[in-house]
Amino acid sequence: MAQTTITSTSKTLLAEYTTVRRYTKFLCEPLEVEDYVVQPAAHVSPPKWHLGHTTWFFETFILKPYARGYQIFNEQYNYVFNSYYETVGARVVRTDRGNLSRPSVADVYRYRAYVDEQMEAFLCQGILAEDVAALVVLGLHHEQQHQELLLTDIKYILGHNPLFPRYAAGVEHWEAPAEEHVMLHIPEGQYEIGFQGSGFCYDNELGRHTTYLHEFAISSRLVTNGEYLDFIEDGGYRDFRYWHAEGWDWVTAQQAQAPLYWHLVDGERMYYTLQGLQQIKPDAAVCHVNFYEASAYAAWKGMRLPTEQEWEVASNQFKWGERWEWTGSAYLPYPGFKKAAGAVGEYNGKFMVNQMVLRGASMGTSVGHSRSTYRNFFHGEHQWQFTGIRLCESRSF
Amino acid sequence: MAQTTITSTSKTLLAEYTTVRRYTKFLCEPLEVEDYVVQPAAHVSPPKWHLGHTTWFFETFILKPYARGYQIFNEQYNYVFNSYYETVGARVVRTDRGNLSRPSVADVYRYRAYVDEQMEAFLCQGILAEDVAALVVLGLHHEQQHQELLLTDIKYILGHNPLFPRYAAGVEHWEAPAEEHVMLHIPEGQYEIGFQGSGFCYDNELGRHTTYLHEFAISSRLVTNGEYLDFIEDGGYRDFRYWHAEGWDWVTAQQAQAPLYWHLVDGERMYYTLQGLQQIKPDAAVCHVNFYEASAYAAWKGMRLPTEQEWEVASNQFKWGERWEWTGSAYLPYPGFKKAAGAVGEYNGKFMVNQMVLRGASMGTSVGHSRSTYRNFFHGEHQWQFTGIRLCESRSF
Amino acid sequence: MAQTTITSTSKTLLAEYTTVRRYTKFLCEPLEVEDYVVQPAAHVSPPKWHLGHTTWFFETFILKPYARGYQIFNEQYNYVFNSYYETVGARVVRTDRGNLSRPSVADVYRYRAYVDEQMEAFLCQGILAEDVAALVVLGLHHEQQHQELLLTDIKYILGHNPLFPRYAAGVEHWEAPAEEHVMLHIPEGQYEIGFQGSGFCYDNELGRHTTYLHEFAISSRLVTNGEYLDFIEDGGYRDFRYWHAEGWDWVTAQQAQAPLYWHLVDGERMYYTLQGLQQIKPDAAVCHVNFYEASAYAAWKGMRLPTEQEWEVASNQFKWGERWEWTGSAYLPYPGFKKAAGAVGEYNGKFMVNQMVLRGASMGTSVGHSRSTYRNFFHGEHQWQFTGIRLCESRSF
Amino acid sequence: MAQTTITSTSKTLLAEYTTVRRYTKFLCEPLEVEDYVVQPAAHVSPPKWHLGHTTWFFETFILKPYARGYQIFNEQYNYVFNSYYETVGARVVRTDRGNLSRPSVADVYRYRAYVDEQMEAFLCQGILAEDVAALVVLGLHHEQQHQELLLTDIKYILGHNPLFPRYAAGVEHWEAPAEEHVMLHIPEGQYEIGFQGSGFCYDNELGRHTTYLHEFAISSRLVTNGEYLDFIEDGGYRDFRYWHAEGWDWVTAQQAQAPLYWHLVDGERMYYTLQGLQQIKPDAAVCHVNFYEASAYAAWKGMRLPTEQEWEVASNQFKWGERWEWTGSAYLPYPGFKKAAGAVGEYNGKFMVNQMVLRGASMGTSVGHSRSTYRNFFHGEHQWQFTGIRLCESRSF
Repeated sequence: MAQTTITSTSKTLLAEYTTVRRYTKFLCEPLEVEDYVVQPAAHVSPPKWHLGHTTWFFETFILKPYARGYQIFNEQYNYVFNSYYETVGARVVRTDRGNLSRPSVADVYRYRAYVDEQMEAFLCQGILAEDVAALVVLGLHHEQQHQELLLTDIKYILGHNPLFPRYAAGVEHWEAPAEEHVMLHIPEGQYEIGFQGSGFCYDNELGRHTTYLHEFAISSRLVTNGEYLDFIEDGGYRDFRYWHAEGWDWVTAQQAQAPLYWHLVDGERMYYTLQGLQQIKPDAAVCHVNFYEASAYAAWKGMRLPTEQEWEVASNQFKWGERWEWTGSAYLPYPGFKKAAGAVGEYNGKFMVNQMVLRGASMGTSVGHSRSTYRNFFHGEHQWQFTGIRLCESRSF
Repeated sequence: MAQTTITSTSKTLLAEYTTVRRYTKFLCEPLEVEDYVVQPAAHVSPPKWHLGHTTWFFETFILKPYARGYQIFNEQYNYVFNSYYETVGARVVRTDRGNLSRPSVADVYRYRAYVDEQMEAFLCQGILAEDVAALVVLGLHHEQQHQELLLTDIKYILGHNPLFPRYAAGVEHWEAPAEEHVMLHIPEGQYEIGFQGSGFCYDNELGRHTTYLHEFAISSRLVTNGEYLDFIEDGGYRDFRYWHAEGWDWVTAQQAQAPLYWHLVDGERMYYTLQGLQQIKPDAAVCHVNFYEASAYAAWKGMRLPTEQEWEVASNQFKWGERWEWTGSAYLPYPGFKKAAGAVGEYNGKFMVNQMVLRGASMGTSVGHSRSTYRNFFHGEHQWQFTGIRLCESRSF
Repeated sequence: MAQTTITSTSKTLLAEYTTVRRYTKFLCEPLEVEDYVVQPAAHVSPPKWHLGHTTWFFETFILKPYARGYQIFNEQYNYVFNSYYETVGARVVRTDRGNLSRPSVADVYRYRAYVDEQMEAFLCQGILAEDVAALVVLGLHHEQQHQELLLTDIKYILGHNPLFPRYAAGVEHWEAPAEEHVMLHIPEGQYEIGFQGSGFCYDNELGRHTTYLHEFAISSRLVTNGEYLDFIEDGGYRDFRYWHAEGWDWVTAQQAQAPLYWHLVDGERMYYTLQGLQQIKPDAAVCHVNFYEASAYAAWKGMRLPTEQEWEVASNQFKWGERWEWTGSAYLPYPGFKKAAGAVGEYNGKFMVNQMVLRGASMGTSVGHSRSTYRNFFHGEHQWQFTGIRLCESRSF
Repeated sequence: MAQTTITSTSKTLLAEYTTVRRYTKFLCEPLEVEDYVVQPAAHVSPPKWHLGHTTWFFETFILKPYARGYQIFNEQYNYVFNSYYETVGARVVRTDRGNLSRPSVADVYRYRAYVDEQMEAFLCQGILAEDVAALVVLGLHHEQQHQELLLTDIKYILGHNPLFPRYAAGVEHWEAPAEEHVMLHIPEGQYEIGFQGSGFCYDNELGRHTTYLHEFAISSRLVTNGEYLDFIEDGGYRDFRYWHAEGWDWVTAQQAQAPLYWHLVDGERMYYTLQGLQQIKPDAAVCHVNFYEASAYAAWKGMRLPTEQEWEVASNQFKWGERWEWTGSAYLPYPGFKKAAGAVGEYNGKFMVNQMVLRGASMGTSVGHSRSTYRNFFHGEHQWQFTGIRLCESRSF
């Protein structure tokens, strides 16, 4: 899977557009038509919806307002492919996405081809105003976010099918972590947090600012399957003391006993990967745990999750990028955070409640999409992203 | 749409098998692959599930027990395609059918082809034992039932899509009813009810028995759209007095204002048919009303629905077959009803509570599948079958 | 517990009014104030609601329209104490009844005293018009219905409290059934069904009419605890074959293993009665089974429940009155049934769907309230009435 | 309402115990017995449950382990009055508390009297070990927390009754705020946060530590009803742009249009107070808004809520104590936070996810219970506490 970094200089915008859009299609190549349609859980979207929605973004925010004489592909698609932008009108209820057999997959690809043709013409026609170029870049990063969601949603769709079909060979990497396990020490003091530099970032990373950290130690590597298995076998899922109250409610309601995609087959612990069911590799980093599980594991170890500030400050001292790493930080605005006007302002700010920050990136993240200041966020109960655990502990208390 | 009657003499069994099985595929020809997969409501099944389930019936009840050396196509299909037969093991929860992208449509057709080949070989090989022949005939009638469900489920899938795609031209017939509207009188007395003769019938029709009816009058034709519109415009959906208490709860919860598939488009009343959105034809029989609506309409007219016994006795005096007609009879066992042993015994008896009997047939019913003693049944709130209303009134009270 | 029959001749109306109203209060004497308030399930009403609602009935249907110069006790009580009469305006949602601490119990008793005083004055003032007298009689029978509901709701409230408080001594009778167990034979033929005579009956019993019955045998006595225990111990709650599909769903969802109020305490089977927890008496009639359990038990015995017509025809040959007896009949209108105009017309007709008929009476039924033509009805899943099982079987098939 | 500060020196422990326990009863004096029983929402507890639970705390954590020869009042009360302490065994599901009529109110008061007598004897008998004394103090603060919950639950119970009964005169204070409205400026820099000193505090306030704040301005007084009304009348509840996505879902689902307890009566805006329905006073501080409303109001003003650190640092410059003030901070552990061992460790830490911090105190807070480092917390959707809004804005960005 070749991936390409978006550099966002205006010169290369067309090339970047083509590359990003092509990679989305590449991700769908292993799918059967049927796989594009279903939505086995409310938080999962059908692949054809991702294909349409990312296309709708360019049509709605670039072509309609800025491309002279643009003819809308289909007036009804706004209703079908809008996700949560209240500014842009009514939309299919999120839980109904999997009830729509039409537009067909072929129609959605026709829609993509039409918009791509129009976008390429638009991008070729000369110098873009800076704000329009910025919107195009945002659209590409938006599509890269959906590329990872596409992959995790595909895994959810195939991994919840009783036939456990494989997606493609060699997608999920399971090498043992090469890193030695040491605790890295960070001294107390003032640190700078937030994005700096000239490249792209989201509004939620802006406003680089001083923060004060107390002495802490953070693990040089992620928790492994083998280590997590010790937690399971020590009764971790049966002892409320390690869990948040809402986490324990989740364990009880779901009768949770292991991370998502772990199965006991004829007495053997198996794990569903994108290449099919496999034996669990003890040395690989544990994956598909939610915030409650990550916190409970850390509590069982007598440790805790790092805050997002701790993670960011320490991140140049360890290798990251294999798993999205749950932090102990709630997703909240940075000091001085300001929403942009219009629909783009709905991108981040309105989600800043009841979600937890994840830092890093995963093997499913498109190349160049993440950075050490990137703030990913999900609700605490979700397991279906490629999430992992890094331990931390306070030293000055 | 050519259809063929199942006569069930052993000679013609192979021909009947081929015809019935072919007609199921014929019904699916207008579909896109995506249409086979979705399940927009719990009571609707994805078309590919119907294709697999009817095939599974022959594999499970004929080939596995009776065809020597039969190799099961795929061991996991039992879990996927069992509907409600507790005797035959675990199964996918009904509401999850639309979450399964696999087996693919092509796989399901391969499954059908494999089972058809095996069934044809089995049927060719000589004289069948009478009970096995009876099971084959049951399987064919079972498949015919699913043919109508297939059509109504397809209508539900396409009719709940915001693009209102058409299925095929000329499928739903909308001629004005030719019959004059008269009230037919049936005198008080003893009548015989239930199946007689040598052909096929379901166990729930058996046990022909005497019943006593009081004088009543029954309409020679079905209620039309125009007549039903009068009810709507007279405030029928806003006046609780015409409704059962549970019917009124349904009206309130659904904010019901008209039969299913009626839409107000730019001030004009439209109706979604299998050939797409059309203007409502006032002289055609009203369709897609549930039991509550049928009862409320009758109450508004100062009349009532016929019982299933009244319907059966009077049915040779009027034309029927355009709509399944709601009766005022709950679905209960006939005197002396006996469940068959084994899985076949789960076919009818266990549903004899909280459902209402419908009599007749509809334009979606496979030719030869119904008869005047046929007892169809659905829950009172369901509208998605091709259902209509025939009025009745008591005369001797 | 002294109880008195309502004879409904106009002369004795005042005496009957006083007696019935007093008995309702008598039933509440053992209660603590707190017991009047709670509603541990949607189908249960707080005792103070019953006290207020039966009073509201007389205020609304007698005093307001017919008592000159009547001053309403409290304008807001209509909202609080209306049950389901849409004709009479908005009302507290049924599931919210247990959320109301006010009006207090003392206020409700004041309301009763006020209405009783006004009613007694009204009844003393001379000859009542026939329709008004009929409404008073209806109000008394209505209150008698609520007397039994009061008792079963009290049992539910106390029986679902972890302290298992007793209500009063000697209320539930547990003598062994004196009757010999024989099957009584009823020959095939025409029979007359429905109320006749000059006393009170509900509209749903009216329209005496001919029905045709086939030969059947019916048990001379009810099924006992000991017999039902055999069913339990034979795995009756674990074998789907005995159950309706919706009954099996109920068993699974509730993890049902025995009738309501049966408890396993230190390995011993106990039963909560109104006098507290007691050992189960094997010879007493089983109680608190729902329709699904009654049907499943009958199926396990290779028999069935009687229809309501069979029950009525045979009822003069056996002793009844200890338990409400589930029949195999759905609650539907008799031939020629007509709803009364106005609010009284909401009494019965609108419930004629999805409920099953029970015949007989129970130890909780007020004396004189039932008769052999009485049609009680409840949803099939409810267990909290004093319900039992009488077996029946067809003989001519 | 006289209230007394808990000073927690060992000398005065008995006096403090008596005072705190007496105040709880004082709060209940205006109640009818019925008011003690109901639970009109899952997050509300019946007053008698509060009375029993606070008593159970002393019995379970002091008397059972430390009072020699203590006889438990009633073994079953542990099941009834445990709130969420998993360490101490099974308990009534929270939503079932309002289904229990027993123990009666009189029984609960007997339970209180018994435990009080035992506690007083225990406290008199000499010098307490330091950890036991600390537990007693914790129990008293625990009871003070429940005193405010008792008052807000009583308000919820009476304020959701259609009769709008009054609780007591003069309880809710509605003076116009005397403070001038100015924005107080706090300069950028390092600040110390968290409890210090020798008195009582909760574990979640411990670990005084340095934090870094950026320049901000904070209002000298709370937002008033009149100011909030401007937001309402400007369409604040109909414009999604001011709301978090989950806040907008809440507005839509609840059809929210104003704070809790606001009613439009004959065209006039009224407000339910503990002394009954009253006209809204424009100069009083707005009350009973949830976090979503507080955030939306601030967004409409172009401002934001303060973080809990900002609030704590600025709090000595303004008057607080009239309303619990929503902050923009999620409830998370302070650096170095450690759970205590055993049941006491369940007090705070396990709730540190998906809740927001409130700072200050309210007119319902028991005297001496709060302090400037106190961290109160509730879910963002809850309105039933005495909550208000203080505005803040960043200045250095």
